[in-house]
Amino acid sequence: MRQSELFTKTRREAPKDEVAKNAILLTRGGFIHKEMAGVYSMLPMGLRVLNKIADIIREEMNAIGGQEVFLTTLQDPEIWKKSERWSDEAMDIWFKTELATGTEVGIANTHEEPLANLMRQHISSYKDLPRFTYQIQTKFRNELRAKSGLMRGREFLMKDLYSFVQSEKELEEFHEKCADAYMKVFERCGIGDKTFRTFADGEPFTKFSDEFQTLSDAGEDIIYLDRKKELAVNKEVYTDEVLAELNLKKDDLEEVKAIEVGNIFKLGTRFSEAEGLEYLDEDGKSHPVIMGSYGIGVSRLMGAIVEVLADENGIVWPAEIAPFSVHLLALPGGEKEADKLYEKLLAQNVEVLYDNRQDISAGQKFSEADLIGIPQRVVVSERSLEGGGVEVKARDSDDEKVIDIDAFLNKMTN
Amino acid sequence: MRQSELFTKTRREAPKDEVAKNAILLTRGGFIHKEMAGVYSMLPMGLRVLNKIADIIREEMNAIGGQEVFLTTLQDPEIWKKSERWSDEAMDIWFKTELATGTEVGIANTHEEPLANLMRQHISSYKDLPRFTYQIQTKFRNELRAKSGLMRGREFLMKDLYSFVQSEKELEEFHEKCADAYMKVFERCGIGDKTFRTFADGEPFTKFSDEFQTLSDAGEDIIYLDRKKELAVNKEVYTDEVLAELNLKKDDLEEVKAIEVGNIFKLGTRFSEAEGLEYLDEDGKSHPVIMGSYGIGVSRLMGAIVEVLADENGIVWPAEIAPFSVHLLALPGGEKEADKLYEKLLAQNVEVLYDNRQDISAGQKFSEADLIGIPQRVVVSERSLEGGGVEVKARDSDDEKVIDIDAFLNKMTN
Repeated sequence: MRQSELFTKTRREAPKDEVAKNAILLTRGGFIHKEMAGVYSMLPMGLRVLNKIADIIREEMNAIGGQEVFLTTLQDPEIWKKSERWSDEAMDIWFKTELATGTEVGIANTHEEPLANLMRQHISSYKDLPRFTYQIQTKFRNELRAKSGLMRGREFLMKDLYSFVQSEKELEEFHEKCADAYMKVFERCGIGDKTFRTFADGEPFTKFSDEFQTLSDAGEDIIYLDRKKELAVNKEVYTDEVLAELNLKKDDLEEVKAIEVGNIFKLGTRFSEAEGLEYLDEDGKSHPVIMGSYGIGVSRLMGAIVEVLADENGIVWPAEIAPFSVHLLALPGGEKEADKLYEKLLAQNVEVLYDNRQDISAGQKFSEADLIGIPQRVVVSERSLEGGGVEVKARDSDDEKVIDIDAFLNKMTN
Repeated sequence: MRQSELFTKTRREAPKDEVAKNAILLTRGGFIHKEMAGVYSMLPMGLRVLNKIADIIREEMNAIGGQEVFLTTLQDPEIWKKSERWSDEAMDIWFKTELATGTEVGIANTHEEPLANLMRQHISSYKDLPRFTYQIQTKFRNELRAKSGLMRGREFLMKDLYSFVQSEKELEEFHEKCADAYMKVFERCGIGDKTFRTFADGEPFTKFSDEFQTLSDAGEDIIYLDRKKELAVNKEVYTDEVLAELNLKKDDLEEVKAIEVGNIFKLGTRFSEAEGLEYLDEDGKSHPVIMGSYGIGVSRLMGAIVEVLADENGIVWPAEIAPFSVHLLALPGGEKEADKLYEKLLAQNVEVLYDNRQDISAGQKFSEADLIGIPQRVVVSERSLEGGGVEVKARDSDDEKVIDIDAFLNKMTN
């Protein structure tokens, strides 16, 4: 895309009403727009990143047998009363609204109940199990405070998968399969080496839940990490008893702040019993279906990636989720060759942001490129052409080198 | 996908609480699940169709210069007060809710105000114009009645594009460009020959708006259609004066019912003035930006397609938006060859629903295939193999013919 046509503009100054690094950089780079605290619109480049993260998650969920659905935001209170989660006391982050007919309805913050209710139409026998159903959908949480940018939203994008199985053993097996898939997601999103499986409170369903925590000073959680074992314990369950149970030693643990980017809960039969989701086994005996839930905050993950990977000059996007692969900069004397290179890269299906703007100084183009954070910066200028081609620099490195244009094009063929 | 793994089941009977054909067939086929009146969850096959429609719209909007964003559902009242559309009197389909802090906020049914407000950050000069910004996003309308399935939802998927230009002439040009793009969308969705551009009430912005109306007895609108001119007039502006103005003759017009699947409004400076969205011209003089809005109800379009194309046996999906291209049915004696064919089709990237279920009669498989409505049905049975291959039948035709398996595979290579 030609930058002259991209409607968003970058900003030099941080917005005055933001304190979180992710919100500041994403706003300055033109990725997001704040509508109110914890409520952000996605601008073209922000949406590109968000969609790429969502597609990675989608691929990994499909690979473990997930079937995608899209449930509704408006929620029928009757379904939630059955599980006793309708009242504001039971769930203190509900948004509620009212139909024109006067009926109060909910605005979804999670979907255990409606999905269990829906699956009753489609599960009746052991032959219909197991099932793994997920969605990537906007959720709403009525948070009292929301100062962490994309990391704690009142409105945010979430992937939530739910499993429906017959036995604890199957639940356990899928739990591990999904945990592996989660680590693949975080690796592909560039934060695999900073993200650790973490034992956390499993209440009210089980003793423990599994969290995926990404190390960051911006994190709201405190975890105790055993780097050798690549395993952590959330402060909320950090007791001598738990450490003994998990075979972890206090001396091996490091206290660190972290951002929760994913979680897994064993739900058991809590929701299937409430909603009447049962199946007949081979002997014709009825049982409630056993459920698990598996969440990744998609927009939170985007915020976490910015927090963890950005440097003092701006955002650093990992290759697989960057809004574009190449940021092509035309500088004086290089315009014609840059135009040609842009067309050739497009013809090769390379995703390029092309800074073809004419009234912008080289210095400004460089600093905007650093702020936006596209993995490869390619400069075409009189100097680069005299040097034999284009000047190529990775966003996360200081090495610049001039490469012959055809050699560069060749390198970009995949 | 193997049908034995698809979690949804079809139903023989119509749901008791539905009257609209689209809701009945889509529920019976396992495409949607009703949460409450006018509020439907999308099941795997429904989501596939919806995403394909959305992708067609996306392609056509990108082709005319649209840049995709994703605005929020939660709405700041201050922005809407500026345009005097916050009150329930001004906009009687608002859903509203309350932040934990006590502030009342809106749940978006349209996005003129927040987008005009957002664009202030990115438009300041004539050099920043024109801009065309769109999104495909869930909208909420607090309808008193919602009995038309996907055609009138309280919660529904909408494509809304907004144009930002300098002159009426530019607005007019883009209007026509978008109208052409809309007709491409409806053609690709299989209802081009039944969809007509229709003059309708443009209040409160202009005299006329442009609607795109699809002929159907299930439609809520009455239009007067000149089939030769491929042009219609909505009953709401059907007066002698208007007919004279449009050069249409009463005798050439046919009164028909129709479903509004798209619309275009010239907004002028109504919202840019309210939100302070201005630009400086070449002489440094300030003007409010001129806006237009361009909507397609994505989920409504899905409902309309079912209404218009279904027959007495079920849904008939057009090729480009069908959940799968091929419905492969294994019948007794054909299982082994069907398995092989399924794998080969997958290897050729053909989207196949494979009815590999073993305890289902041929009759039931056939009637389910008709209900689900995939364009090509391919049967592998002892009889078809004896006849020389697979029995192929288009959903919208009664002709069956037996084709050699390799010839069929060859035909499916594109």
